[in-house]
Amino acid sequence: MTETDIERDVDEAQTAALELAKLGDEERSAALYEIADAIEARTDEILVENETDVEEGERLLEDGEYTQALVDRLKLSESKIEDIAEMVRSVAEQDDPLGKTLSARELDEDLELYKVAVPIGVVGTVFESRPDALVQIAALGLKSGNAVILKGGSEALHSNRILFEIIEDAAADAGIPDGWAQHIEAREDVDALLEMDDAIDLLMPRGSSAFVSYIQDNTSIPVLGHTEGICHVYVDDEADLSMAEDIAFDAKVQYPAVCNAVETLLVHEDVADEFLPAIADRYETADVEIRGDERTRDIVDVEAATEADWDTEYGDLIVSIKVVDSLEAAIDHVTAHGSKHTESIVTEDADRASAFMRSLDSASVFHNASTRFADGYRFGLGAEVGISTGKIHARGPVGLEGLTTYKYHLEGDGHLVATYAGEDAAPFTHREFDGEWTPGRLSDE
Amino acid sequence: MTETDIERDVDEAQTAALELAKLGDEERSAALYEIADAIEARTDEILVENETDVEEGERLLEDGEYTQALVDRLKLSESKIEDIAEMVRSVAEQDDPLGKTLSARELDEDLELYKVAVPIGVVGTVFESRPDALVQIAALGLKSGNAVILKGGSEALHSNRILFEIIEDAAADAGIPDGWAQHIEAREDVDALLEMDDAIDLLMPRGSSAFVSYIQDNTSIPVLGHTEGICHVYVDDEADLSMAEDIAFDAKVQYPAVCNAVETLLVHEDVADEFLPAIADRYETADVEIRGDERTRDIVDVEAATEADWDTEYGDLIVSIKVVDSLEAAIDHVTAHGSKHTESIVTEDADRASAFMRSLDSASVFHNASTRFADGYRFGLGAEVGISTGKIHARGPVGLEGLTTYKYHLEGDGHLVATYAGEDAAPFTHREFDGEWTPGRLSDE
Repeated sequence: MTETDIERDVDEAQTAALELAKLGDEERSAALYEIADAIEARTDEILVENETDVEEGERLLEDGEYTQALVDRLKLSESKIEDIAEMVRSVAEQDDPLGKTLSARELDEDLELYKVAVPIGVVGTVFESRPDALVQIAALGLKSGNAVILKGGSEALHSNRILFEIIEDAAADAGIPDGWAQHIEAREDVDALLEMDDAIDLLMPRGSSAFVSYIQDNTSIPVLGHTEGICHVYVDDEADLSMAEDIAFDAKVQYPAVCNAVETLLVHEDVADEFLPAIADRYETADVEIRGDERTRDIVDVEAATEADWDTEYGDLIVSIKVVDSLEAAIDHVTAHGSKHTESIVTEDADRASAFMRSLDSASVFHNASTRFADGYRFGLGAEVGISTGKIHARGPVGLEGLTTYKYHLEGDGHLVATYAGEDAAPFTHREFDGEWTPGRLSDE
Repeated sequence: MTETDIERDVDEAQTAALELAKLGDEERSAALYEIADAIEARTDEILVENETDVEEGERLLEDGEYTQALVDRLKLSESKIEDIAEMVRSVAEQDDPLGKTLSARELDEDLELYKVAVPIGVVGTVFESRPDALVQIAALGLKSGNAVILKGGSEALHSNRILFEIIEDAAADAGIPDGWAQHIEAREDVDALLEMDDAIDLLMPRGSSAFVSYIQDNTSIPVLGHTEGICHVYVDDEADLSMAEDIAFDAKVQYPAVCNAVETLLVHEDVADEFLPAIADRYETADVEIRGDERTRDIVDVEAATEADWDTEYGDLIVSIKVVDSLEAAIDHVTAHGSKHTESIVTEDADRASAFMRSLDSASVFHNASTRFADGYRFGLGAEVGISTGKIHARGPVGLEGLTTYKYHLEGDGHLVATYAGEDAAPFTHREFDGEWTPGRLSDE
């Protein structure tokens, strides 16, 4: 694909986005049901293409280039394809994120301002190998009225191609404007996208920390994403220690490769003698490697943590542990070493929970719950396009609402600013009211 | 100021931001009232410093480097200082933008997710010569719990210094953490700020199109702002032509130097014969230069517009006029040439208004009102830190709400993700409810 092709694709997406923004929720959701049906109906085709990816993956696994985990994630089955179709239907069933009046304010008699939810426009996404990612992002994009540029991992190329074809066909049959979704395949095309700040409104990269940083540093397009997930669990001196043990275990072991897994446990000194031997035994059952600071090693026999450990996302069955003097010391540690992703405090003391949750500048702050809950599906967002550790626009798991923005609609009756300026300026009323913008509201009265 | 000084300033702001986020609205608002009182009490000092800026401005005006308009904007008076103090009080009186629970959702029994409004953190602002800009931005920043880095125009240096000193002193007296506001003076320091993506959460530049573009192209910090304000008024064939004339006049003449002034009128061919001579006469009374397309020039005797005119923000008493075949042609023109700032349709037909407002991808779309209403004060936002033509985070005039983001608070009772995964996965309830997050909610029950 030459750069000119890419430019044409993005241009098509831009045109389609304006058309898509005018469709109602019924049309967008109907298309999603058609997509879900088509995915199920064409299961065999998907499995054939997926097999090609898996075979190539297994070859690279033998060469030591891929991990078993990567190949496992790549592999689809009939039941996984059913799950994917169900996910598309669950996105369709979500409330319409568009058209809602977010606030309404009378500025003066017959001069009414409405803040109305609208799609962002063209969203560029780059994502990793799981083939369901393409379907998830396309479904969220369509439901929220956005055109999407989809670039998947090369490992899943054949699976992504057939899934994209199915989505494109079914959406076209359902009357969705051509060009609303674009599939790009070459890594080089990503660099071309980064330059298109006039046409692409938002980039959402998912992948390695280095890759996301590269995107952030090489574009003036707004980027939502996260480079690292250095999440903490703090075991307070007022913790229920059996609960703390379960949470620390779940947060590390349930799925260690993901960004919301815990990397560092912070343990209040008053409970360290009791808690550390218990969690060390528990982690041993799952072959978790523990790296502790000096005070931890005074209590349990574990590897020594270095300064670098506090800043490391292991993404693996490794955890670092630090004994702290106080809640404040735990907060300071997270502020210094965290990545603003997800932190959890285990305590029975409401005030201490509150202090922890209010003081930390992370997207998700939990009380007595595993960090692994930080996920769009678990949060009830339907699905997620990604997780953001930035603080602008959307934080944490990003679902439909994160794919919307707003527009101001002002309905007047010939109102002039001159009336409200100078010596005899008329005052504004600035009165909030409950009301939905409806087309040409005032003229209809 | 060396780069090391700047780094220390920003570091102080970052520390202060975490403290500021914990203060309640009462404390933040009380400080704003103290600031307002201090500004009034120290009016004489402000006038002395302002006189220095104005004298320098007048010298540069004689040299032809400054315009009279710039010197006028620079000049403070006792009554203008009273207005500034009143503006600070009006920001104090706004509803608290922080702490609000934006949504609450039960994920499962005793597992409750709250989306809570919080400050962004550290906001860097660069703004033009009007000395009230510094006070407005500092007031909005304090009310919304953000630390602010303030860089004003060199023309207003002495005025900005004394205003900053007054704000800093009064806020400190009111118990606001030191370092929450930082005043920087050198243009070179702006470049240092652009590198500090770990410490600054948002940049809001105001100034020339070239300057804002420069900022956007040279930082990976999110930027809110606008480079151009190419606003349109479309006079529909169903327009009340007398209303259209008033709106077109107000939108151009009331204050032509600002970004929300109209630059291009689009006139439906069916009303051109009647409307164009009338508006041409009206504009003549205010010495507005008209540049028209061929069809306009067939009707009125005006200068010829070139292609470049459709893409030009005059910021002056110049307007371009184009006759269009249809509403759709008007929409296409704005889509091709607009800057996504503000557009207005004048029509008595609700459906045509709706089509215009829904089809255009601009931050503000108006019906029967002057484009000049696109302003934070007129919109009832209290004041504005700037106007954004981007589509991420905040659009149009940016007030207190645009200076906030959110955080997810999850309250559990030892909940583990393992419970909701695998063969015997428990289901989520995902039930929305009305409720405010209060510290340690569940433990209090």
